[in-house]
Amino acid sequence: MPEYVHGGDVYSYAARFGGAPVDLSANINPYGIPESVKQAMHDAVETCTQYPDPFCRAPRQAIAQAESIAPDRIYCGSGAADVLDRLAAVLRPKTALLLAPTFAEYERTLAGAEVRFHTLRADEDFAVTGWILDDITPDLDAVYLCNPNNPTGRTIDPVLLREIAARCAEVGARLIVDECFLDFVSGGETLVSYLDTFPSLVLLRAYTKMYAVPGVRFGWCMTADTELIEALYRVGQPWNVSVIAQACAVACAGERDYAAQTAQRIADERVYLTESLTARGLTVFSGEANFLLFHTPDTDLQDKLTRRGILVRDCSNYRGLTRGYYRTAVKTRKESEMLLAALDEIRKGEA
Amino acid sequence: MPEYVHGGDVYSYAARFGGAPVDLSANINPYGIPESVKQAMHDAVETCTQYPDPFCRAPRQAIAQAESIAPDRIYCGSGAADVLDRLAAVLRPKTALLLAPTFAEYERTLAGAEVRFHTLRADEDFAVTGWILDDITPDLDAVYLCNPNNPTGRTIDPVLLREIAARCAEVGARLIVDECFLDFVSGGETLVSYLDTFPSLVLLRAYTKMYAVPGVRFGWCMTADTELIEALYRVGQPWNVSVIAQACAVACAGERDYAAQTAQRIADERVYLTESLTARGLTVFSGEANFLLFHTPDTDLQDKLTRRGILVRDCSNYRGLTRGYYRTAVKTRKESEMLLAALDEIRKGEA
Repeated sequence: MPEYVHGGDVYSYAARFGGAPVDLSANINPYGIPESVKQAMHDAVETCTQYPDPFCRAPRQAIAQAESIAPDRIYCGSGAADVLDRLAAVLRPKTALLLAPTFAEYERTLAGAEVRFHTLRADEDFAVTGWILDDITPDLDAVYLCNPNNPTGRTIDPVLLREIAARCAEVGARLIVDECFLDFVSGGETLVSYLDTFPSLVLLRAYTKMYAVPGVRFGWCMTADTELIEALYRVGQPWNVSVIAQACAVACAGERDYAAQTAQRIADERVYLTESLTARGLTVFSGEANFLLFHTPDTDLQDKLTRRGILVRDCSNYRGLTRGYYRTAVKTRKESEMLLAALDEIRKGEA
Repeated sequence: MPEYVHGGDVYSYAARFGGAPVDLSANINPYGIPESVKQAMHDAVETCTQYPDPFCRAPRQAIAQAESIAPDRIYCGSGAADVLDRLAAVLRPKTALLLAPTFAEYERTLAGAEVRFHTLRADEDFAVTGWILDDITPDLDAVYLCNPNNPTGRTIDPVLLREIAARCAEVGARLIVDECFLDFVSGGETLVSYLDTFPSLVLLRAYTKMYAVPGVRFGWCMTADTELIEALYRVGQPWNVSVIAQACAVACAGERDYAAQTAQRIADERVYLTESLTARGLTVFSGEANFLLFHTPDTDLQDKLTRRGILVRDCSNYRGLTRGYYRTAVKTRKESEMLLAALDEIRKGEA
């Protein structure tokens, strides 16, 4: 079996240790799936006797209303990862620029392309700064950004982000901005109102994290380039988004208060967890999302935590990071306390 | 929006006429989703808070047991169409041979390849005969067969099928056999026991049709070539099969009696529908699956039936067929009677 490079692998844990761990390796809303969303999924079971709508008319309509854009600017896929695969298959960039570190799936979909990296610096708290503009050169076909970035949780300054979009337009590079975690950032600024200004801009989104439905597979992109939207339909199977995923998305689009409340609760927990990890001598990087990147000289920490039933994400396989970097989700106080207690236990055992 | 070339488009019907039609354009088991499968899907809603197992361990184990093969010979995808996309992306055949007519998705996934066609003949009841062996030449990289074929419902003689497999092995062509409708053929013979004999053989399956779950998206392939299986994992996103689809597949694998009973009931209805359509002057081709191909000089029949709330599949967009060919699903007696009554009404109106 090929190597699995992401978090959330509760299945390997179960095979190795039995039972369910406290999973802080995937960044999922700890308050779970809203009741209305669960109900929509249960109701949809009965209609699975039909093929899914290949054009996702219902979820596109619901998202269009929630985002105040036209439905023909939306393409829905089986998770944001499906949309990324299709974007790469349609755009076929010869040369692409990615952040390092960032989410590994962008690079996977770009097999065959020349991929360059704009390396973020630990001593700048992994912020994206104006230096990136120098790396956006006329020979680039595509630039991928993640806002907030994964695994750092850092957002990009909105003014800089628009400068980047203008620079991409100037050099003729497609700009793909992954906003899948933006819901968790209090006051996070989406680029959705700039789709007309930058026709080559593509925004990536998912309800996966905020509505705690990574198992369902639903994500989408938005762009003013409706020819690109048409091409995304043609490049893969017509029935990629299941009946249940479409129903789930419609329900999620109606749950905006849930998102706002969650973002506030997570913001409080993020402050608590940052302070508590720092107090234990770990280097915690500034993040604004529902996860935190931290560093410790202990390169076996993931394994030690796993044996105590807690999964965190070892970030040493992220391009631009080394051993000793870890990512933890920010969940409820209870889960934070369990992580902190385990860290204390490990430290005590080694004292 | 791009053109949609398949059956089962109840969404466009609803947009145009409102309400739900009698859908005979998609070939789904009319007896619906087994209760155990529905229950498994409802239960799985709660576990959608986790990412799906990227390696589909539970469904592969269940299918392995049902098919008496090793789990590492199985690759699961988001419907058979996802598996077809991945097969094309991994195998990248330069030259491929397809039947004509056959399911349109094979050709879609082979964009960029030189695709040749072995054309089946109406005066041979669209049977695959020994003539196909002459078309399997050493310059071919892949041969796609559909058994029973769609839209004809014809199965390939098992002895000929093994000759084809041997010929493909001889010329070094990968043989992909789509057995997605084989469950409906009483006494239908799968090639699964020949996987060792023909390591370049790939069998495609889905629970979609028999267990009435096209909305769920689950399909798989089987091959003795475990390197191919590994490559299929790497060529797309790791979370392609949803948590609900995986649970659904495990439950379907345990419902073999349901399949046998359905096949028998459908066989009876197929005889009835064949006789009834023939008695009305339509040319019905011999089929052994849960659908029938027929011909009539009336090239507007689909539209006339749609206006009466009945969807059939206009087959004029199948390569190798012309206007006047239609496919109808074989469902319950009640649905057959509705189709027949509509045909009678159309004839009366035109007399």
